Amino acid sequence: MGKLMALQAIEEFGPVDLIEPSEVPDDGLIVPLAMMGAPTVLVEKIPNGEEFPRVFEALRNYLGKPVFATMPIEAGGVNSMIPLASAARLRIPVVDADGMGRAFPELQMVTFHLAGVSATPMVMTDEKGNLVLLNTISNEWTEALARSATVVMGGSAMIAIYPLTGEQVKEAGIAGTVTLAQRIGEVIRRSKRESQNPLSAVLEVTGGFCLFKGKIVDVSRKTVGGFARGEALFDGIDEDRGKSLQLKFQNENLIAISDGEVIAQVPDLITVLDAETARPITTESLRYGCRAVIIGIPCNPKWRTPKGLETVGPRYFGYDMDYVPVEERVSGACAKRGRLE
Amino acid sequence: MGKLMALQAIEEFGPVDLIEPSEVPDDGLIVPLAMMGAPTVLVEKIPNGEEFPRVFEALRNYLGKPVFATMPIEAGGVNSMIPLASAARLRIPVVDADGMGRAFPELQMVTFHLAGVSATPMVMTDEKGNLVLLNTISNEWTEALARSATVVMGGSAMIAIYPLTGEQVKEAGIAGTVTLAQRIGEVIRRSKRESQNPLSAVLEVTGGFCLFKGKIVDVSRKTVGGFARGEALFDGIDEDRGKSLQLKFQNENLIAISDGEVIAQVPDLITVLDAETARPITTESLRYGCRAVIIGIPCNPKWRTPKGLETVGPRYFGYDMDYVPVEERVSGACAKRGRLE
Repeated sequence: MGKLMALQAIEEFGPVDLIEPSEVPDDGLIVPLAMMGAPTVLVEKIPNGEEFPRVFEALRNYLGKPVFATMPIEAGGVNSMIPLASAARLRIPVVDADGMGRAFPELQMVTFHLAGVSATPMVMTDEKGNLVLLNTISNEWTEALARSATVVMGGSAMIAIYPLTGEQVKEAGIAGTVTLAQRIGEVIRRSKRESQNPLSAVLEVTGGFCLFKGKIVDVSRKTVGGFARGEALFDGIDEDRGKSLQLKFQNENLIAISDGEVIAQVPDLITVLDAETARPITTESLRYGCRAVIIGIPCNPKWRTPKGLETVGPRYFGYDMDYVPVEERVSGACAKRGRLE
Repeated sequence: MGKLMALQAIEEFGPVDLIEPSEVPDDGLIVPLAMMGAPTVLVEKIPNGEEFPRVFEALRNYLGKPVFATMPIEAGGVNSMIPLASAARLRIPVVDADGMGRAFPELQMVTFHLAGVSATPMVMTDEKGNLVLLNTISNEWTEALARSATVVMGGSAMIAIYPLTGEQVKEAGIAGTVTLAQRIGEVIRRSKRESQNPLSAVLEVTGGFCLFKGKIVDVSRKTVGGFARGEALFDGIDEDRGKSLQLKFQNENLIAISDGEVIAQVPDLITVLDAETARPITTESLRYGCRAVIIGIPCNPKWRTPKGLETVGPRYFGYDMDYVPVEERVSGACAKRGRLE
């Protein structure tokens, strides 16, 4: 859906400039745009195109300043594409950066939060035309208030959040996220053209590790409290035949457990790829019979700090376990199969 | 609490001008101020005084216009006093009017709503300093979004809502509410001085009817979804000995049923007064052993229109029954005891 929105906007309004953080003046204003809510809802309750200009204008008016650029707040799914679609329409550039280097389910799970930047003033809207502006005392309050408004709006909302200065993006953002996503797409397409294994290419570009190869035999999923929560169960195939993997998620994958042993945890990325094409299978697309490779990718070092782990470590999500970086887990018990041959 | 807030503000900032609706210029801006949420919470989670200036300023800035006056949005409890306390502090007058001629639990239950006036832009805040601005497509959406924010804020919030022009107040408001409340207080105090029955005086001033005299033998109350919902059971005393009365409420009293027979319904006022002093016993103060007189007061005619009854009639609150004006019920089966001797 995000890709279609971006393609249509670019066709209608022209191409978008992608700029580096260093190209933004220190006092230039950047307004990230995104959707929030349960991805299971997003795929059915589709925006009508008016929402992003509406939240953008409302936030700009509230701040009383011109906006220099937009950017993705996270990398993944529709939220990678929305800034491109909106930038075309609003005729502003997109900064090649994000605030996670991955995707996370809650509003305070952003590197800008770790640096003390407020998520508010923030504006949210729905496809009906309701508008909510928040100005809070903490990003946790923003998450609580915005989440409940998202639920009332029907489970998904379009938001303008974390208004940032160029200086803040340079210091606290994660640079290069958009071009990394581009590069992943490129190597997948090239592998296909050259009839090579796309998984090896993805692992190389992302610095990731192959954790498990399996077939989904069960998915339980509930859309509750504005999130898609649940777990998927994989039976091993090929070299993992006879083993099983349990994958727990809250919008994004959180913990992977194989036969009682934790093999990857937040904040490292746990990514499910189609076993043949290496295209991602997002949590809302997990379904019985999918043949997949689960890979682990080390997260940005900002998430491995004490404040980072407090914000997005396993314990925040209710798993009483210490965080061990995925590359250490892989180099231990699983070292023998850290990389695909 | 409202009385204490008003007394303190007047002591600190000086007296407040009470003006008639006709004194407001047609294009003069009026911003009603109120608390929303469960009264059971309000009595324990007390505002710190900064909230009303905060919502007032935020709404004024958003509208970009000077504010001529404030007014109560409803008559009853703390929301009669908050406009006085705030007007003293903000040095603006209070308009002698409200939007209900009584109190109701939901935001769209206002005569301005019947006249097509939007409740938004609306601003809400809590004692911690979180601020939410709403701009919606309907007053029902405002109620849904504001109610969920109130719950997140801890069950009560301070609001600036239904920004009105002088013309709208004159056409769609209920004039004289503040002075009516003053007059009720006056007759109660005078009756006490003159050792007369204060109930008769209250019935005369309000045009009300005595419905039941009883003692509370049970109260069940839950604070759910941002409301105080429940019912109180009265055993008859004096001339009602042997009978019982069931009173159902959602912040305000909705339906009174005596031995299976409905004796009063929303939108007419069902008011519980202390049997000795005629002082009101609000729903959050109902408790075992209270000796009370339940009176019914005809509501403002605006509520008896089709749109009025659709908005606040028994069916809106989930009671599958037709509305019969309280004076008709009293002149029927209960005629013999319509008025206190």
